[in-house]
Amino acid sequence: MNILILGGGGVIGQKLAASLAVRGELRGQPISKLTLADISDPAPVAASFPVDCITCNIADATSVNASVGADVDVIYLLAAIVSAHAEEDFDAGLSINMMGTLNVLERVRALGTRPVVVFTSSIAVYGGEVPDPIIDHTFLNPQTSYGAQKAIGELLVNDYSRKGFIDGRGFRLPTISVRPGKPNRAASSFMSSILREPLNGEEAICPVEDDFPHYYLSPRKCVENLIKGAEIPEADLGMNRCMMMPGKMWTIRQVIDAMTAVAGPEPAKLIRWEPQPDIQRIVKGWRFDMRPEKSVKLGLEADESFEDNIRYYLEDDKPAG
Amino acid sequence: MNILILGGGGVIGQKLAASLAVRGELRGQPISKLTLADISDPAPVAASFPVDCITCNIADATSVNASVGADVDVIYLLAAIVSAHAEEDFDAGLSINMMGTLNVLERVRALGTRPVVVFTSSIAVYGGEVPDPIIDHTFLNPQTSYGAQKAIGELLVNDYSRKGFIDGRGFRLPTISVRPGKPNRAASSFMSSILREPLNGEEAICPVEDDFPHYYLSPRKCVENLIKGAEIPEADLGMNRCMMMPGKMWTIRQVIDAMTAVAGPEPAKLIRWEPQPDIQRIVKGWRFDMRPEKSVKLGLEADESFEDNIRYYLEDDKPAG
Repeated sequence: MNILILGGGGVIGQKLAASLAVRGELRGQPISKLTLADISDPAPVAASFPVDCITCNIADATSVNASVGADVDVIYLLAAIVSAHAEEDFDAGLSINMMGTLNVLERVRALGTRPVVVFTSSIAVYGGEVPDPIIDHTFLNPQTSYGAQKAIGELLVNDYSRKGFIDGRGFRLPTISVRPGKPNRAASSFMSSILREPLNGEEAICPVEDDFPHYYLSPRKCVENLIKGAEIPEADLGMNRCMMMPGKMWTIRQVIDAMTAVAGPEPAKLIRWEPQPDIQRIVKGWRFDMRPEKSVKLGLEADESFEDNIRYYLEDDKPAG
Repeated sequence: MNILILGGGGVIGQKLAASLAVRGELRGQPISKLTLADISDPAPVAASFPVDCITCNIADATSVNASVGADVDVIYLLAAIVSAHAEEDFDAGLSINMMGTLNVLERVRALGTRPVVVFTSSIAVYGGEVPDPIIDHTFLNPQTSYGAQKAIGELLVNDYSRKGFIDGRGFRLPTISVRPGKPNRAASSFMSSILREPLNGEEAICPVEDDFPHYYLSPRKCVENLIKGAEIPEADLGMNRCMMMPGKMWTIRQVIDAMTAVAGPEPAKLIRWEPQPDIQRIVKGWRFDMRPEKSVKLGLEADESFEDNIRYYLEDDKPAG
């Protein structure tokens, strides 16, 4: 089993690589090779099988062609620029999120190797005037360019699969929290920062009110779901291969209370409340009342409680010292 | 009011041009110029205002840039290759239906002129396992590349509108019948042929059973709806600018009975029943139980009866002699 992670330098890509290294197998086969590809050199991951780290710009078809070989069995297509970034830089969103996805799909179509392609979409595909709750058959009406580009990626993954060019499956990720590392340009970045920084003993800014509801998943569960996602038998995917990845809805108050329950009262005192209209304009258009059925039936899972998300961060990611 | 019809040489493009010539105005303004653009020279249309006929290949950005000027107020983006064609020639579908739409949108974004863009999508965006009836908020799960490319066009039209690059509106056309002229490469082509050829005194082949249900609209009503579609006040479009164009569901038996009611018993005798699995595989994946609400509220209309569709053909299109 030869696996390529496009976006292998990102938070999820690195955690996925580490998890694959521990498992040593995927889809019932031992992993023979893992390639981590990203726009800049991804950090290596220790494993009992060879791990290559390469640079690849998915917006550039030549770079994609050089990075995606005929011997690849499973491609994780995680590479993207995130919501606020794509909203500010429309060209970058088009060329990376939309054309980048097309470049990868076109490359494997040309190879004729029909790999498994696991595509990460986002709950940012939902929005507009569709009624709650969001169910498996809800219309995608993204209100960001990032969401539109992800919805386009889903249509491509479905069509390339239907045509037999790939064995694709797409998962709409909830907001991943607690996300380790630095803040990024996702409008949702604060939904990790207000927990991560205080848990690290640092100040953080919360740009929304404490009753703001959102739909969350921990990085640990996300990676477990991405591995399960690659292993779902093709016959079980049906005519739509793109679906919600299960998460849970919490308010800002609930996630802060969960932090307090796990880590005591001090971290919450490090949160400063500063309303930010630009961020609010994006995130208040997002939907949060999600009722995934298909992905749950296929074995994907949400976290049990947000206390778990906090504990996973402390166990997996909190910097030492 | 300077109007450009991309796909101006097609059946709907020509009828739209003729209708605009009769009206002389659009969106409350006199028409100053009409340009018909198509892959080969579109037929001219007589009008009291200047009508230019030009060639434009929307798959070619240079051709698009030469055809779409800064003085255009309204663009009808009708140009596409149809379902069976896009299914056979995947590259052509991608480059014309998907990249062609993108080329037009990118051109007007670069111009910064924010024209009204009326985009024709298709009920081929529906399919898969979504429950009946199809309502305004139903998930798009196309089961043809044509449908996927149209659904991608819708997402682009919505996002370019949301960003303020265009004032877009998209309409999912029912199958247009009775379509004049020659059969085309749409899998739905027979849904006109089995009426048109017999009404012209010629034989036609019906490749499906007579209880096959489908969703229809006459060319005359389609053109009326496209004109109304350009005139809908932007504020009434809401957060999703793409919607079903109203049609009506009929079985093959019903449309043939309507022909008999209007034109007597002879035409129906010219239909030969020859099941065609390739056509059936495509059209049986299409949905027909549509319940458009938004477009009806906005003033768009279906035909009253299929007898009307037959009469419109006899009045508007039947070759003389």
